[in-house]
Amino acid sequence: MTGPCFISFFLLFNLLPFFQTLEASHCSIKGLPLVRNIADLPQDNYGRGGLSHITVAGSLLHGLKEVEVWLQTFAPGSRTPIHRHSCEEVFVVLKGSGTLYLASSSNKYPGKPEEHFIFSNSTFHIPVNDVHQVWNTNEHEDLQMLVIISRPPIKVFIYEDWLMPHTAAKLKFPYYWDEQCFQVPQKDEL
Amino acid sequence: MTGPCFISFFLLFNLLPFFQTLEASHCSIKGLPLVRNIADLPQDNYGRGGLSHITVAGSLLHGLKEVEVWLQTFAPGSRTPIHRHSCEEVFVVLKGSGTLYLASSSNKYPGKPEEHFIFSNSTFHIPVNDVHQVWNTNEHEDLQMLVIISRPPIKVFIYEDWLMPHTAAKLKFPYYWDEQCFQVPQKDEL
Repeated sequence: MTGPCFISFFLLFNLLPFFQTLEASHCSIKGLPLVRNIADLPQDNYGRGGLSHITVAGSLLHGLKEVEVWLQTFAPGSRTPIHRHSCEEVFVVLKGSGTLYLASSSNKYPGKPEEHFIFSNSTFHIPVNDVHQVWNTNEHEDLQMLVIISRPPIKVFIYEDWLMPHTAAKLKFPYYWDEQCFQVPQKDEL
Repeated sequence: MTGPCFISFFLLFNLLPFFQTLEASHCSIKGLPLVRNIADLPQDNYGRGGLSHITVAGSLLHGLKEVEVWLQTFAPGSRTPIHRHSCEEVFVVLKGSGTLYLASSSNKYPGKPEEHFIFSNSTFHIPVNDVHQVWNTNEHEDLQMLVIISRPPIKVFIYEDWLMPHTAAKLKFPYYWDEQCFQVPQKDEL
């Protein structure tokens, strides 16, 4: 048994740095070219049907500290959850159209939201902490947007419906696309 | 003479609020729709030949505090000045191609910059305080980019050339597109 055991140990010993490097290369800017083709960046739906999310420039992936940029595409009928966050958020609609639902944070619960038509080449921003949802209500076309947030990585409070009290909204942090690369900050041992 | 003088005074008295409203509406979010057509936003070259600049979502125009988004189009041969700033900056190239010149801030002066090819559907960000210049080096096509900065309004240090010491770079603040709406912050009288 000494032979195979030695080989396993040898393999483990040699493969460990390889796996560490693999993970590090996905979650670190090291080795990434300065100018990146957006078509080559990781794209996923993160478990949400109809979504394509790409972190174009991000906190966990690219070392940014103050802004983060996403490219998101919503198939017809797909949508964000009803949610709020305390960072700023700007949208630039590149393709398609849809509806922004927006409710203020000044009552105990969001209540019936305002409806705003959003369309290709339009822009809007979400007032800090206002509860909102973006929905591709166009049955015929994808809705594609560049999304810019401040203070990444994002901390999102999710509502089940518009009548849920703000205090009952559930924190999702790290958010779906940040989970894989998120590391709990090291506490100062002193 | 009493008649015309009275009329002038009357006109002035009545038009003043009108002009104030005009200026206020250009430099304030009040009265702006939440969802804005980018094609309707003010566009100017701000004295720089070959440039078209639109503040898509901004600090002075739209009340943002943490991020600002510009849509910039550079005609063939046109370029930014050689400059640096201490905020983060992300570019998303929408159309055309060109060259990013980039030099670090770790020596006394920038020195010969690295050259990076930038192209449609590419993205890059500028390390904080690195000296850079974006140049439409494509003779046949406009270069169009979305530009995202943190901590608006931007404070830019401009270099005459790549051999100018960092300490000699000249501060331009407020920057060209912020001049019209910039107001010196009120000091606390206490």
